[in-house]
Amino acid sequence: MKKIVQLIVIGLILLSCSKNEQIKTTAIKSSEAKNAEIEVKITKLLAEMTLKEKAGQMLNIGLPSILTGGYWDARDSAVFHKEKFKKFIIDYAVGSIHNTPGFTPEKEVWYKIVKEIQDSAMQKTRFGIPVLYGIDNIHGANYVNGSVMFPHQIAVAATWNTELSRIGGEITSYESRAASLPWNFNPNADVATNPLWGRIGESFGEDSYLISEMTNAYIKGSQEKGLENSTSTAVCVKHFVGYGAGKNGKDRANAIIPENNLRQYFLPPFEKAIQNGAMGVMISSNAVNGIPCHLNTYYITDILKGEMGFKGVVISDFSDVEFLVAAHQSAKDMREATKLAVNAGIDLLMNPYDADVVDIIIELVEKGEISKERIDDAVSRVLRLKFQLNLFDTPYNNPSEYPDFGSEKHIAANYKTVSEAITLLKNKNTILPLPTNKKILVTGYSANSINVLNGAWSRSFLGRETTYNDPTKLTVLEAIKKQVGTENVEFVEGTDYLDDINSDLAVLKAKNADYIVVCVGEIPASEKPSDINELELPKVQQELVKRLAKTGKPIILVMVQGRPRIIREIEPLVDGIIMAYLPGQEGGRAVSDVIFGTINPSGKLPYTYPKYSGNVLPYYYKKADIRDINWGYNGFYPQFEFGFGLSYTSFEYSNLKINKDTLSGSDNFKVAVDVKNSGKREGKEIVEVFIKDLVATVSPDAKKLVRFNKISLKVGEEKTIEFNLTTKDLASIGIKNKWIIEAGEFEIYVGGNPQELLNSKVYYKN
Amino acid sequence: MKKIVQLIVIGLILLSCSKNEQIKTTAIKSSEAKNAEIEVKITKLLAEMTLKEKAGQMLNIGLPSILTGGYWDARDSAVFHKEKFKKFIIDYAVGSIHNTPGFTPEKEVWYKIVKEIQDSAMQKTRFGIPVLYGIDNIHGANYVNGSVMFPHQIAVAATWNTELSRIGGEITSYESRAASLPWNFNPNADVATNPLWGRIGESFGEDSYLISEMTNAYIKGSQEKGLENSTSTAVCVKHFVGYGAGKNGKDRANAIIPENNLRQYFLPPFEKAIQNGAMGVMISSNAVNGIPCHLNTYYITDILKGEMGFKGVVISDFSDVEFLVAAHQSAKDMREATKLAVNAGIDLLMNPYDADVVDIIIELVEKGEISKERIDDAVSRVLRLKFQLNLFDTPYNNPSEYPDFGSEKHIAANYKTVSEAITLLKNKNTILPLPTNKKILVTGYSANSINVLNGAWSRSFLGRETTYNDPTKLTVLEAIKKQVGTENVEFVEGTDYLDDINSDLAVLKAKNADYIVVCVGEIPASEKPSDINELELPKVQQELVKRLAKTGKPIILVMVQGRPRIIREIEPLVDGIIMAYLPGQEGGRAVSDVIFGTINPSGKLPYTYPKYSGNVLPYYYKKADIRDINWGYNGFYPQFEFGFGLSYTSFEYSNLKINKDTLSGSDNFKVAVDVKNSGKREGKEIVEVFIKDLVATVSPDAKKLVRFNKISLKVGEEKTIEFNLTTKDLASIGIKNKWIIEAGEFEIYVGGNPQELLNSKVYYKN
Repeated sequence: MKKIVQLIVIGLILLSCSKNEQIKTTAIKSSEAKNAEIEVKITKLLAEMTLKEKAGQMLNIGLPSILTGGYWDARDSAVFHKEKFKKFIIDYAVGSIHNTPGFTPEKEVWYKIVKEIQDSAMQKTRFGIPVLYGIDNIHGANYVNGSVMFPHQIAVAATWNTELSRIGGEITSYESRAASLPWNFNPNADVATNPLWGRIGESFGEDSYLISEMTNAYIKGSQEKGLENSTSTAVCVKHFVGYGAGKNGKDRANAIIPENNLRQYFLPPFEKAIQNGAMGVMISSNAVNGIPCHLNTYYITDILKGEMGFKGVVISDFSDVEFLVAAHQSAKDMREATKLAVNAGIDLLMNPYDADVVDIIIELVEKGEISKERIDDAVSRVLRLKFQLNLFDTPYNNPSEYPDFGSEKHIAANYKTVSEAITLLKNKNTILPLPTNKKILVTGYSANSINVLNGAWSRSFLGRETTYNDPTKLTVLEAIKKQVGTENVEFVEGTDYLDDINSDLAVLKAKNADYIVVCVGEIPASEKPSDINELELPKVQQELVKRLAKTGKPIILVMVQGRPRIIREIEPLVDGIIMAYLPGQEGGRAVSDVIFGTINPSGKLPYTYPKYSGNVLPYYYKKADIRDINWGYNGFYPQFEFGFGLSYTSFEYSNLKINKDTLSGSDNFKVAVDVKNSGKREGKEIVEVFIKDLVATVSPDAKKLVRFNKISLKVGEEKTIEFNLTTKDLASIGIKNKWIIEAGEFEIYVGGNPQELLNSKVYYKN
Repeated sequence: MKKIVQLIVIGLILLSCSKNEQIKTTAIKSSEAKNAEIEVKITKLLAEMTLKEKAGQMLNIGLPSILTGGYWDARDSAVFHKEKFKKFIIDYAVGSIHNTPGFTPEKEVWYKIVKEIQDSAMQKTRFGIPVLYGIDNIHGANYVNGSVMFPHQIAVAATWNTELSRIGGEITSYESRAASLPWNFNPNADVATNPLWGRIGESFGEDSYLISEMTNAYIKGSQEKGLENSTSTAVCVKHFVGYGAGKNGKDRANAIIPENNLRQYFLPPFEKAIQNGAMGVMISSNAVNGIPCHLNTYYITDILKGEMGFKGVVISDFSDVEFLVAAHQSAKDMREATKLAVNAGIDLLMNPYDADVVDIIIELVEKGEISKERIDDAVSRVLRLKFQLNLFDTPYNNPSEYPDFGSEKHIAANYKTVSEAITLLKNKNTILPLPTNKKILVTGYSANSINVLNGAWSRSFLGRETTYNDPTKLTVLEAIKKQVGTENVEFVEGTDYLDDINSDLAVLKAKNADYIVVCVGEIPASEKPSDINELELPKVQQELVKRLAKTGKPIILVMVQGRPRIIREIEPLVDGIIMAYLPGQEGGRAVSDVIFGTINPSGKLPYTYPKYSGNVLPYYYKKADIRDINWGYNGFYPQFEFGFGLSYTSFEYSNLKINKDTLSGSDNFKVAVDVKNSGKREGKEIVEVFIKDLVATVSPDAKKLVRFNKISLKVGEEKTIEFNLTTKDLASIGIKNKWIIEAGEFEIYVGGNPQELLNSKVYYKN
């Protein structure tokens, strides 16, 4: 069969005329042929595998389960436990493994670990099926020591530069694969609708379109060379679906998402990811409308595998089948949980600790409670991904063949990303950039910490271990010292995350400073440890700012944090505000470069920054949420709007043109605008295009982002920026829960500052 | 036709055997006969009425539209504007009127107003159809000067005594009807799921079952003598549906309610109300899932009129058809809005200012955009209610025939209600009740205000006007003075709602006091004026408590407020906490009587009182919301739990018995518990019964209230309290959005303190 397919391909090549078309056709056909070949192999394997061998493929264990010592032990080396290794790798022949060995190895150590696993799996089991290794390399290959660690996703979103997300995916894949890690539990396509949520920093923010664009650029970077390429990783888009919408803002909390919101906001990033070849989807640990996602047949089988046609692997999150019992109370025991989860459509069960679930699956199939077809479907998906990743031929990768691992080139890409992410939110009297010859007091919780810059998932899960910190990387303080000279910098800790350290001293020293740089922020955290009970920035940190403000010295507030924390009371007290998000390894340098003007900031907020904890809305609110009819009591008054960010130069927008005034059917149309750099230095600008349906039966969103483009303009330079749109961009989910366009007027808004958008109308007629 | 029906009735009476059955049958048949008669009249009228006459019946205007002066003018007398009166009452023959004349009249003035309207409508229009007058008499007949003003609904809910809700309905109806006002826009059956919402005080709280019981007791009180009785009013249950769930907590904001939550929590109170004869339902001004309720055919026509079989009048809220244009952007103009609303199933349009909508309806019908059947359905509902209220025979009521209006008997009922509502939340070292011979400092915003006790909807809409205040009613301060003697009481304002007045003086005076009573609270407000941006009790009021606490004197905190405001920081500083809610006219007296022990408090919280603004959950949360699996970071830790409230005596629970351990089908079962007054004074206790489904596919609620009973026990007295339950009480909305019971164990919890409930299990098998 393989040979026949190859002959067809060759024939097709010979038949094609133009060289370009020839190459294109070859690529497509070659991929189709390869896929056909894979399906043949899968069918053959399925026909021969025993039920136990199949069920084994459906299990993903944690690496520590085959190491000496306890599962959660911290280690400094990985020693396989002979019996456990044999049990899981040979006897149960588990399909997949995840997690670190209790420390973060260099790529050479990873190689040894993976090689031993693969060699055994492939030489000592009947079919020699390689193991699929998955890992959370979520901002660079953070679990490979020596890799570059990028800013977290929220900062990548703030660049509004999809190319940077693509490069992030590319480099993360390269550096993961250098450690023989071919499957990445990333990107995160969660729509973060609750600012209390602790993992906003790991998301691309609140806007479905921006998330979708960033997610898919990352997927492109990870996979565009072909999954079989030894610098690619397969992505695993997460968390399907609604993880970022927990109603009380707690990690893994129940989300409330009606069908129309699901389809309008939450599904599109996943839908596009699947169209773009995502072969892994991780299910959300939480429940939506009380229904745990891990048993939701409608979401997994009907929508994901059905409507969206997903052919890849659906994996559970950590222990989440088991947690159907304890965390959701939706199954009375592991047997019932397994039955629910597998029948809902989960293919690969991340059961870190043991292989009992394999025996449970066998029993459930034997008793007819799970069909054989469901098992074959699951296993075929796991095998498909292994074949696509070419793991049968290349089960691990030689780390010495990755010369760019942790290279200056990769570091430069990282620095470029953070330099475009940092968002200038306030610059009163253009106080920024600061001169480099003045006395600076640097203070605050995040001022002198590499860990706070990197956040969680940085060699260690919570990112609080300092042993991995690269001594060549700079904190904000160190970078400032380097930039303006140690003699010009005074440093006082001021506060810890929640406690005062020596704020009195900070206030005292402030009196001798020309400028104060206060670096506030959040303690590195993810998942449950990132839960908070109040959205306000911790009081002690606000108090430091208040006390410093009383000195009358100008203050630059630097925020190093994943989510927006309320700063309403201190915002008026400071002159400049720099949002650094979780900027990663080059974050200290980049923050300093923004402060002193080496970087002209060009990031814009990927979420709405609320002003009050009791008035939280995304930018796509409904008029009813802010209605002021007859009252005037309300309105939309966030601290900073989605899409807002300042530059050291200025941009003028003019001449907004839409090439059609009436649209119908599936018309395309063009929106063009002139953008001029009217300031005094070169700068980058994000041109944003929003649409608002002026009247819709389902009350229309205030507006929705449909296009954006990050451009660079020299001083005085003017460009016409054109966007291609279609009537699809006018659509929203109607009263029947389907995408529709109702006849009527639509407002098109274009600009770089959400409060100063140009606007024009188009009319859609049926 | 009428005579034939009467003969049948007589025949039936003669046929029946036992006297009891005879009476019962007569009542039923007589009511059926009356209804049949009404339907005949309706059919006859519909056959003869013109389209304009029909459309007129569908209009509800505001009374000021037929008075001299502008609509929103404050007035001290009501003078009809001749032309406007003729236009609306005669030419358009409007079906219904609402609102006050710009002041709150005595019943005699109301009589004159209504009489003139009805006489004209009945004598000068072709069919002499009386006008249906509706009003917001929501806590007593608050818009009839001289009526008793009860505590607001949240306080009635806190009594957990349905009889008091019934009496409230009865007295409100009596005193409304004394003013010729036969239709009451009440009770409020909103499920208040967001503590930020400003109208929680007007609701029965967060629990669907408690709301349902209280709503239906109120309906019973209002209607049980028969709608034709001249002391009854027809209720108008509101707001259908989801008004209390605005996502950002703002009045009329978009609510997010998936189908299963709608059916589990929001519909049941309405469903029961309709079973119990509610003939009016007011539609919610907000949108649910972006869909304005006023155009939601699925909610109004399919669910309310279809599934629930509602035969009464669906009325819009104030201007809400018009607001489909401006507040929801769901209709491009009034014409489209009217079409959407009427076709969705709205029968009576509360368009306060003009009659244009009548012309619009005519045009829409003539053009076939609204069917004639829809109009006939709407008009038949309006006419049905008018016939049922016997308005054709008794279009107004003689105010002198209501001797109990504002009577001592009614005042006593009011006092009893508030005395059972006030909820003791803290009583450290049994500091309460206080002795009456000590020096008391009374201070705080709500200490000396009648208006704060009454809240909004108290003669004036916002309840801030003092001109109506009854000089015989006491503020908290006045009541305390009366109780312990002026010489023992020192008063300092301390603060206003948001501003300091003389807190320094309060602190100074505290030094000479034995006890400090600090009365905090909310400014009277409803609708948009009740919107807040932070859930915390205003800082200045908390600051007062903090400063007073430094004096070391024991503090009793009295809270006069509709919703729970965060008090986490001041709670530990005070010794006693009394929640007064919005206690109405007898509130000052009752608060004082609790403080000094004349009343033994017996209220319990009808909502969960949150401790943190960023951790808000109702008591029926999901395990995922608080999961502590492997982490221990979370949990459920409100400030005070739903169903919590202390007494000056103590109660012991024992001997919980369930008469069956296995249930199936539609089995009944009994839950019994012994409750003993183990303290030193007679007291009332609320015995609460909760059920928790231990395992359910849709993650089960932490627990749900299914029964309660308020009992009274003498010192040492013990009673066995028995509850009759059915398997229906085990049901919840399953994954297919239908009520189901899954086989398995259910925990039954019984007790009076949510933290100390007895428990036992039952098993349900299919």
